[in-house]
Amino acid sequence: MKILITTVPFAQRNHLPIELLKGLEVDFLINPLNKKLKEEELAEMVHDIDIIIAGTEPITDFVMSRAPKLKFISRVGIGLDSVDLLAAKKRGIKVSYTPDAPAPAVAELTIGLMITLLRSVHLANLEMHKGNWDRHFGKRIANSTIGVIGLGRIGTRVLTRLAVFGTPRLLVNDINPNPELDRKYKLEWVDKETIYKEADIISLHLPLTKFTKNMVTKDELEMMKVDASIINTSRGGIINEMDLYNVMKKNHLSGAALDVFENEPYIGPLREIDRCLLTSHMGSMSIDCRTRMEVESTEEVVRFIKNKPLISEVPEEEYNVQKQGLSS
Amino acid sequence: MKILITTVPFAQRNHLPIELLKGLEVDFLINPLNKKLKEEELAEMVHDIDIIIAGTEPITDFVMSRAPKLKFISRVGIGLDSVDLLAAKKRGIKVSYTPDAPAPAVAELTIGLMITLLRSVHLANLEMHKGNWDRHFGKRIANSTIGVIGLGRIGTRVLTRLAVFGTPRLLVNDINPNPELDRKYKLEWVDKETIYKEADIISLHLPLTKFTKNMVTKDELEMMKVDASIINTSRGGIINEMDLYNVMKKNHLSGAALDVFENEPYIGPLREIDRCLLTSHMGSMSIDCRTRMEVESTEEVVRFIKNKPLISEVPEEEYNVQKQGLSS
Repeated sequence: MKILITTVPFAQRNHLPIELLKGLEVDFLINPLNKKLKEEELAEMVHDIDIIIAGTEPITDFVMSRAPKLKFISRVGIGLDSVDLLAAKKRGIKVSYTPDAPAPAVAELTIGLMITLLRSVHLANLEMHKGNWDRHFGKRIANSTIGVIGLGRIGTRVLTRLAVFGTPRLLVNDINPNPELDRKYKLEWVDKETIYKEADIISLHLPLTKFTKNMVTKDELEMMKVDASIINTSRGGIINEMDLYNVMKKNHLSGAALDVFENEPYIGPLREIDRCLLTSHMGSMSIDCRTRMEVESTEEVVRFIKNKPLISEVPEEEYNVQKQGLSS
Repeated sequence: MKILITTVPFAQRNHLPIELLKGLEVDFLINPLNKKLKEEELAEMVHDIDIIIAGTEPITDFVMSRAPKLKFISRVGIGLDSVDLLAAKKRGIKVSYTPDAPAPAVAELTIGLMITLLRSVHLANLEMHKGNWDRHFGKRIANSTIGVIGLGRIGTRVLTRLAVFGTPRLLVNDINPNPELDRKYKLEWVDKETIYKEADIISLHLPLTKFTKNMVTKDELEMMKVDASIINTSRGGIINEMDLYNVMKKNHLSGAALDVFENEPYIGPLREIDRCLLTSHMGSMSIDCRTRMEVESTEEVVRFIKNKPLISEVPEEEYNVQKQGLSS
C-alpha cells in the first residue's frame, strides 16, 4: 500500500496524523513540491499510489487514468469541486471527506473579515505602515444590512455569531429552505439580486459547482451599492476575479475580502487594490480545525486499510450535483 | 459667544451638529489645521474662545491661561486624560463628555482586531499584496485564553461579544469588582501579572492616568507568551511604544494591534513591524457612534448657552482620579 498526501501543510502543528500512518506500516509520501499541485504535476505522481489524502488539487478523470492502483481518496476538507466524483465512481474509487471540521474556523474568520471591511482596518494598516494617518469612517454590524448566500454548515454558523452584534437586517439565500433557522433568527429570505442590491456586506458560503461558477460577475458587482463590500471564504471562481478587479478599479465597492482564488497561489491583479483584503486560503487554518480535518481524513484511511466501515463517505447528493454538471 | 471645535473630522458624515450650532446664532470655527492640535497650537487659538468642543488635544492649565473667556469644555468622547480637570475647576470652567457613545464601536472593532491577530490576517494581506503565499496557522477565540484589563463601558461590551465565540477562559482585571458580570460570564478575576503570563490575547480598556501610563513596558511584554498578542484601543501611552518595538523586533509576540498612540498622528518605528497592526485612532469612528458623540457634545453646548441643566457633566470621581495625579 502506498499513500500520497497532497495537501500542504500536513501534520505541521500536530503529529497525530503521521503517528496514525506510521501505525499502519504502509509507505506514505507528503507532496514533495510543497504547494498546491496542478493536474499535470499530480498525474505524474500517482502511478503507484493506492490512496490519496487530498487537498484541493484537481483529481480529474485524467489524473485517475494515471493512477491504476488508486482505490480511495480521503479529502482533507469539505469542498468536492476538485474531485471528479463520477470518474471515481466509474473506477470503483471511494471518496470520503471531512465536512464539519472546517466550519467553526471559517465562520469565525468571516466575522473578523466583516468587521475589518466595515471599518477599513486593512486599509488603515497599509496607510499607517506607509506613514499616512487617515481616520476612516466605518459602520458597525448593528447598522449594516448583511447578506449571506449559502446557509450550509458555515453560513449558519456565521448567522449565530452575527446575532450577538445585533444585525438589524439579515438577507439570506439558499437553494434549500431551512425553517429551523427562522425560529432562531430574524431572516429575510430573498433572491440573490435583492442581496446584491441591498446588502452593505455580502458573504458567500457556497460550494463551487456549475451553478455557482462565475455567479458574481460585473453585472452582479455593479448592482451592489457603491460603498458595499463582498467576502468570499468558500471557493475561488465564484466571484469572477477580473470583473472584481475592473469594478473596484473604477472605485465601485468600499472593500472586498478574498481568501480563495481561481488559481492558488494567487498572483493576480487584485494585489494592486489596497482596499481588497487578500488572504491565502486560510479559512480552515485554525490549528484545532486543521488538525481535526487531518486526523479525521487519516482515520478514514486507517478504516479503509483495515477494511472497517467508512464513516464520512461523500453522500449521494454530492454525486448528483456533479451529474448535473461540474464546472471545471 | 465664540465656539472652537478642535476635534476633526467634525460633522463630516452627519450635519446635525452644524445645524444645532447654526440655530444658536453664535460664531463657531472648526480646527483650521485639520489635525490633532499640539498644546502650543491650541494655546494660540483660544484667546477669545468661550466654549471648546474638544477632541483629544491637550487642554492644559497653560492652554486655559491663554483662554480668559473659556467657560465650558464639551469633550467629544470619553477619555479625560487630555483635559486638566483640576485647572478647569479652579477657573470655573465646566466640563462635559460623552461616555457611552463610543463604546459599541470600540468593542466591535476590538473583536475584529482579535480575530485578525489570532489568524494573522493583517500579515497575510501584506504578504499577498507583495505576491507571497503563506498559509498562516491561527487560533480561534474558542481555543484561546483571553485577557481583558479594564471592565468599564467598553471592556464589558467586549465580554458580551466574546461570549458567542465560546471563550474557554476569560481572565479579567479591574480596580473595581463587578459581581453582576460574574452572574453573566464565567470570569477569572486575576492580577495583571497572571494575565500577562497566561493570556493568548490581551485587550486593554483603560483610561490614561498616572496609574496606567506605561503600565505595559518591556517587563510586562516579556512576561507574555512568545506567540501571544496585545490590543490597545484605549489610549496611547499605556503600552510603552518603544518597548513594544524592541520586544517585537526580537520576535517576541505573534502580533499587536494599536489604534492609539502617545503622539498622534503616529509616525514611529512600529511601522517597520509587519505583524504590528496599526490603525489611526478609529475605535469610535463608526458613523453612528461618531455622530452620537458629536451630537451629544453639541447638544450639551446648546444647553450650556441656553442656561439649561447639563446632562453629562464629568462626575466627581474623574476629578478625584486626577487629584491623585494625572500622568501628563
